[in-house]
Amino acid sequence: MIFDVLTLFPEMIENYCNFSIMKRASEANIISVNAINPRDFTLDKHKKVDDTPYGGGAGMVLMAQPYVDAYESIKKVENSVTVMLSPQGEPLSDDIVNEFANFDQMILLCGHYEGFDERIREIIKPREISLGDFVLTGGELPALCLIDAVSRKLEGTLGKIESADEDSFSNGLIEYPHYTKPRVYRGLSVPEVLLNGNHKDINEFRFQKSLERTKLKRPDLYAKWLKNQNQTTD
Amino acid sequence: MIFDVLTLFPEMIENYCNFSIMKRASEANIISVNAINPRDFTLDKHKKVDDTPYGGGAGMVLMAQPYVDAYESIKKVENSVTVMLSPQGEPLSDDIVNEFANFDQMILLCGHYEGFDERIREIIKPREISLGDFVLTGGELPALCLIDAVSRKLEGTLGKIESADEDSFSNGLIEYPHYTKPRVYRGLSVPEVLLNGNHKDINEFRFQKSLERTKLKRPDLYAKWLKNQNQTTD
Repeated sequence: MIFDVLTLFPEMIENYCNFSIMKRASEANIISVNAINPRDFTLDKHKKVDDTPYGGGAGMVLMAQPYVDAYESIKKVENSVTVMLSPQGEPLSDDIVNEFANFDQMILLCGHYEGFDERIREIIKPREISLGDFVLTGGELPALCLIDAVSRKLEGTLGKIESADEDSFSNGLIEYPHYTKPRVYRGLSVPEVLLNGNHKDINEFRFQKSLERTKLKRPDLYAKWLKNQNQTTD
Repeated sequence: MIFDVLTLFPEMIENYCNFSIMKRASEANIISVNAINPRDFTLDKHKKVDDTPYGGGAGMVLMAQPYVDAYESIKKVENSVTVMLSPQGEPLSDDIVNEFANFDQMILLCGHYEGFDERIREIIKPREISLGDFVLTGGELPALCLIDAVSRKLEGTLGKIESADEDSFSNGLIEYPHYTKPRVYRGLSVPEVLLNGNHKDINEFRFQKSLERTKLKRPDLYAKWLKNQNQTTD
């Protein structure tokens, strides 16, 4: 998977990809992350990328020309998707991550400050994705979240020690509790059932805990799960 | 605001805070971001922070002792909140960001790989926050999102050129379209109303566009907004 990221802060993107699982995935050629700076595509000598908004108001607006030219400089592969990170977008979900993992290239457009000149949307026609109903300084963190979440789904990124199979949401429920050594820590014991080696009991315990937690912490997900179950058994 | 971040990858946190608005907020002493590595609190010579799960299964589990000891090493100020970044948490929203912006200290717990030993939750009793219904390699990106979103709300972080007043969600709607120079780009013109200097017309245009977009892109937010309007006028 090729990730081409349009950003005024290429180092933010590049730095993150030097760590942990992203680094390993890059080194294994599972992913390749490139940062492209629209500032390198400005036509004036001050390398200006933003200007005041028409109609007045606070904030600066990212100019269309540097972004559109930077976008058009990217070599597109056949199976490619372009995503703008924006609070206006569709909220990111595990389903959308799975969908993106099927592409061979993701072109990610990161804004900063007040937002994009509307004509960037009109010309590039990106899919718009939001992390959630809150506002960030720029699109770089959402882009990194997308790169991270999608990369995890690609074959070979996670080793046996990590595994995405038992993730939260992979079965529509949030995860069961985990325990590791020691058996007793500050008076708190690991549940007995996890120690007896009976896999049927362990699976049942974990499933019940997943259900309990989802019901308690995320009644919306629980309702959705229940509905799916009823449809499956109908 | 003091942000104390428990993470196995302190550089991920520190790097991000060297850029743009986060850097400026640090330099102006509006925020102070510290990364604490639980690996420095391990008691064995291999500095082991994770181990296999009781009950079997893929993945490694973060051990309680290094996390709890690292947590307890942090000097707590009076008005402090502890947050665990986890897909099991409450989804982050603009309201939660505003709530957090009233604290003087946020202690952020980042997991990695398979998750925390459950006893970390039982002992520390953190508030749990999720970015959304998708899974990431670790809690570092969500922690950075939280730091970024909260910092933006603190007085002095955003200069006049940025301003948080007209953000998406600040009035329950997503933002109106922005335009900057030139007036015509690739045949696409800035809407006439933004050029005539009539602020009443401009405000009305922007409000209508906000409404339209919210209705089209986020019917859930639109319904909520409508409900609030009806309550206000009742």
